[in-house]
Amino acid sequence: MTDTTTDRPVDTSATGTLVTSWLAHFERALTAGDIDAATALFVDDCYWRDLVAFTWNIVTVEGAEGLRQMLGQTLDRVQPSGFGLADELGEAGGPTEAWIKFETSVGRGIGHLRLRDGKAWTLLTTLNELKGHEEPKRDRRPKGTEHGAVPNRQTWLEQRRREAEELGHVTQPYVVVVGGGQGGIALGARLRQLGVPPIIVDRNPRPGDAWRKRYKSLTLHDPVWYDHLPYIDFPPNWPVFSPKDKIADWLEMYTRVMELNYWDSTECKKASYDEAVKEWTVVVERDGVEMTLRPKQLVLATGMSGKPNLPKLQGMDVFKGEQHHSSKHPGPDAYRGKKAVVIGSNNSAHDICAALWEVGADVTMVQRSSTHVARSDSLMELGLGSLYSESAVASGMTTWKADLTFASIPYRILHTFQIPVYNAIRERDADFYARLEKSGFMLDYGEDDSGLFMKYLRRGSGYYIDVGASELVAKGDIKLESGVDVVRLTENAVVLSNGKTLPADLVVYATGYGSMNGWAADLISREVAAKVGKCWGLGSDTAKDPGPWEGELRNMWKPTQQEALWFHGGNLHQSRHYSSYLALQLKARMEGIPTPVYGLQRVHHLS
Amino acid sequence: MTDTTTDRPVDTSATGTLVTSWLAHFERALTAGDIDAATALFVDDCYWRDLVAFTWNIVTVEGAEGLRQMLGQTLDRVQPSGFGLADELGEAGGPTEAWIKFETSVGRGIGHLRLRDGKAWTLLTTLNELKGHEEPKRDRRPKGTEHGAVPNRQTWLEQRRREAEELGHVTQPYVVVVGGGQGGIALGARLRQLGVPPIIVDRNPRPGDAWRKRYKSLTLHDPVWYDHLPYIDFPPNWPVFSPKDKIADWLEMYTRVMELNYWDSTECKKASYDEAVKEWTVVVERDGVEMTLRPKQLVLATGMSGKPNLPKLQGMDVFKGEQHHSSKHPGPDAYRGKKAVVIGSNNSAHDICAALWEVGADVTMVQRSSTHVARSDSLMELGLGSLYSESAVASGMTTWKADLTFASIPYRILHTFQIPVYNAIRERDADFYARLEKSGFMLDYGEDDSGLFMKYLRRGSGYYIDVGASELVAKGDIKLESGVDVVRLTENAVVLSNGKTLPADLVVYATGYGSMNGWAADLISREVAAKVGKCWGLGSDTAKDPGPWEGELRNMWKPTQQEALWFHGGNLHQSRHYSSYLALQLKARMEGIPTPVYGLQRVHHLS
Repeated sequence: MTDTTTDRPVDTSATGTLVTSWLAHFERALTAGDIDAATALFVDDCYWRDLVAFTWNIVTVEGAEGLRQMLGQTLDRVQPSGFGLADELGEAGGPTEAWIKFETSVGRGIGHLRLRDGKAWTLLTTLNELKGHEEPKRDRRPKGTEHGAVPNRQTWLEQRRREAEELGHVTQPYVVVVGGGQGGIALGARLRQLGVPPIIVDRNPRPGDAWRKRYKSLTLHDPVWYDHLPYIDFPPNWPVFSPKDKIADWLEMYTRVMELNYWDSTECKKASYDEAVKEWTVVVERDGVEMTLRPKQLVLATGMSGKPNLPKLQGMDVFKGEQHHSSKHPGPDAYRGKKAVVIGSNNSAHDICAALWEVGADVTMVQRSSTHVARSDSLMELGLGSLYSESAVASGMTTWKADLTFASIPYRILHTFQIPVYNAIRERDADFYARLEKSGFMLDYGEDDSGLFMKYLRRGSGYYIDVGASELVAKGDIKLESGVDVVRLTENAVVLSNGKTLPADLVVYATGYGSMNGWAADLISREVAAKVGKCWGLGSDTAKDPGPWEGELRNMWKPTQQEALWFHGGNLHQSRHYSSYLALQLKARMEGIPTPVYGLQRVHHLS
Repeated sequence: MTDTTTDRPVDTSATGTLVTSWLAHFERALTAGDIDAATALFVDDCYWRDLVAFTWNIVTVEGAEGLRQMLGQTLDRVQPSGFGLADELGEAGGPTEAWIKFETSVGRGIGHLRLRDGKAWTLLTTLNELKGHEEPKRDRRPKGTEHGAVPNRQTWLEQRRREAEELGHVTQPYVVVVGGGQGGIALGARLRQLGVPPIIVDRNPRPGDAWRKRYKSLTLHDPVWYDHLPYIDFPPNWPVFSPKDKIADWLEMYTRVMELNYWDSTECKKASYDEAVKEWTVVVERDGVEMTLRPKQLVLATGMSGKPNLPKLQGMDVFKGEQHHSSKHPGPDAYRGKKAVVIGSNNSAHDICAALWEVGADVTMVQRSSTHVARSDSLMELGLGSLYSESAVASGMTTWKADLTFASIPYRILHTFQIPVYNAIRERDADFYARLEKSGFMLDYGEDDSGLFMKYLRRGSGYYIDVGASELVAKGDIKLESGVDVVRLTENAVVLSNGKTLPADLVVYATGYGSMNGWAADLISREVAAKVGKCWGLGSDTAKDPGPWEGELRNMWKPTQQEALWFHGGNLHQSRHYSSYLALQLKARMEGIPTPVYGLQRVHHLS
């Protein structure tokens, strides 16, 4: 991702005048209920992205008609007011951009505005806090002790213990979060701060185990500045790329110090929603004992890359070697000197191939379709540098501001911001790409050359962030079979569509993951999974992301067709940022604040 | 503490000119080796406080003669240069104050300068980093993974495990830190970042247990802004006053994520120094198994309030109730409806009395001598507010800057900054103090009315930060016997010097702690303890802090008369700030950088 606007000269007074004037007109129109006047303040090809502030949804509306419809259904209730510059966020990119603040009938918001020819081109509105339910932080932080004399005082420890003992037994959580990875943990922290302490259930014995159990060479592919959790930043000595066991330890300590009610060794077996009582029945097995929870809201935070796709290949039953999905791959140590075939050519496939090669395995990658590759250094510098880097931090770019800046670009036009970045990367790394293609590796840069992050948003797959494996492919150290498919397995080999037979002691299926609503099918029912439909993807009408255009990621962090069912996930950046909006939606419902949803996700695809 | 200088108008250009000009003259004199010229740049009653930069010691020199002696012995070696304004610290308090930076032959320093009539009144110089040994943080942070192909690569986890397995067995730590409380942990983190990973030994099963085991109502009496550990700040939702079990959890997680080699359940039995080999022999019992460590340096971080003072009273052997030192007090729950006598009237005594009263115990406090009381709110607002508060943070006061600001005031004149603060507190809380005195409570404000923090520095005792117990005393809910001493115990009572007999089921000795060199006597020898002498205290010639004037806290964080033996401790603020200088002193020694000590602590008192 990038922020192409930071190079322009800044003229604060001009920003002030131009934007303030626009905001005054905008507020006057909204206050008067004059939707036409409000719409007339936008250019024709305008975008208004709203994160929960106006719509109780995550929605981008486009053009005059989109604005008119949205305002028509929300304006009376929202009663927006108090528009002004958000000084706490400092300056935006130039005279036609600004950080703004505003209020609604129930909350306070932060937004971002881009003007073109004096009219609004892009507008972002986000709900920042609910009035009367502000988080107890900074000057609202708890005192920690009640001064004075308090007969039969309970200590912090006694209160925490009592809460933990009673929750799920004497008292019911308002929310159950299934899945205690980074997503569930970040959301759990935000909910606790809002006074909506959930129970987070996770099948593993310890927080962080979802990372610990992955292949041993795994490190985060995103750099540290992109990965902070809410409330506690990684320290300044934290590695750029977190090793998996180190991030696992961080998640474990975070769970503890943020006082999360985290039920480890707990498997969610079954969930069903009672539409009449408006309550979930969630059956879990905790340390082997089955029990039932009755929350009002259920969040599946089982990972947008959570449910493995295992291909059904002829001969899998007769293959006598070891075979597993990449998510179950333990790392290379047991395969020293063995013959390994890795099916797939995305991140996991590359990581696993490289680690196997490093211990001296004979390893072949089977590339079935083209892959986008971007070198880590180039991506960090050209893709993330302006928002998430040491130099961004040094120039005053906070994580919050970076997240909001990124969120301010509507998905519809995000590719136009991305294409120049990847063109620059292609130029910079031309020799590298030439070497790689010479080996037979099928490269792409996304269908519209918009690169890695758009692929991630559209399909969650199809790329490798190169940290070294591509050179091994280019040199032939990792053997490559490309443009082929697997026909079948024999007792000791993989047979390819080009007629070759690859002897194999190990087959790794680095074949990706299914849509998150697959979890809903498993836990709730096929009917609910179908009712909710596919998760993730934008409807870009590119490979694995069929149209129509949705405007936002399907079903993520927002209301779904199944009342009281929510999906949470994504990378650490997304978990951090969007957990804020999901938490506010849940808090509002708990407090009985009306939350009429504008533009509820419609279902165009089942998975 | 306070910063009385922040109210003056700031004129940056004037600061620049005045200070820059002074610094230029100063540097010219130093470079020329012209000590007379350098000294002439100071007023007569000047103070130069040096933290390790010039002296490899923590020293304040006074007046022309003090400067001349110090420079005479250090200048040739230190070769100071590059004096200028330290822009990264922003503006100091006014046109005659500035943050400065400089270099020495081996390091980079940060300092603070106060001018008076164009000459230096106070100068602080601190060593910030050693050249070539900068900490791997921010733009020097580790990458976390080695990109490219690395045959037989070791993962982070494998490296950490190997280090932990080998340390103390195959390899010897350069430093052993005895005591894994906040002090040992903060120091351990700094040392690890400098590549001097110590073994920290602690007798308790888990980091934080030193807090967990204290009386259950205990919370920190210092507010959160004062208490941050190095590298990781408490999050914005952290309570103002940390409950003891919560701070314990934080310390435990900190130990883990900072990758400390923390040997829990390990008791240090005996240590001796071989002056010939320049190595310690440290016998520890780890999980019941005795083993020997051979570090070059030994740090006692056993707590400046670590070794309990238990009085020897007639009848203690015949008393049939329960009796214990305050450090062993478990909290009130077992004493509901019982008769309790608490001997002492400082912080612990008040906390324990109040908690006992809260469960309905009949409790009497025995006050033997006068006590300084300051209400927590007043102390926070008037004492700490300008440096350590939410509003200080909001106005850009970082923890580092606050620590340096506080360090910039020489101890010799610190009381003159403190007296006005406590005068203001007395005025503000006059009614409160009147109520308290009416109950018979003997109040003081320090011998020179300089209040709580000076008492802490001079004697580490003699005060109570009131969080509610004083009202209970004033109202008579906590019964008070003041101006008396304990004559003896009987089977079931405490007999006082005023002839009264107090029936008692429980006697708590809130009678304070001895000097840290008592630990050296236990662990090493009485000879070494005597050679090192008393720890803590300034030599202010006030009660429990006999003269002569020392200029700095005795033996803390700096070389002692026993080569390779160090004392570390204090509150969280001190542990955080001074661990930096102690870590740099140890690092320099490990690297073989010459560290001739100027002004080695002389011993005037044994304990």
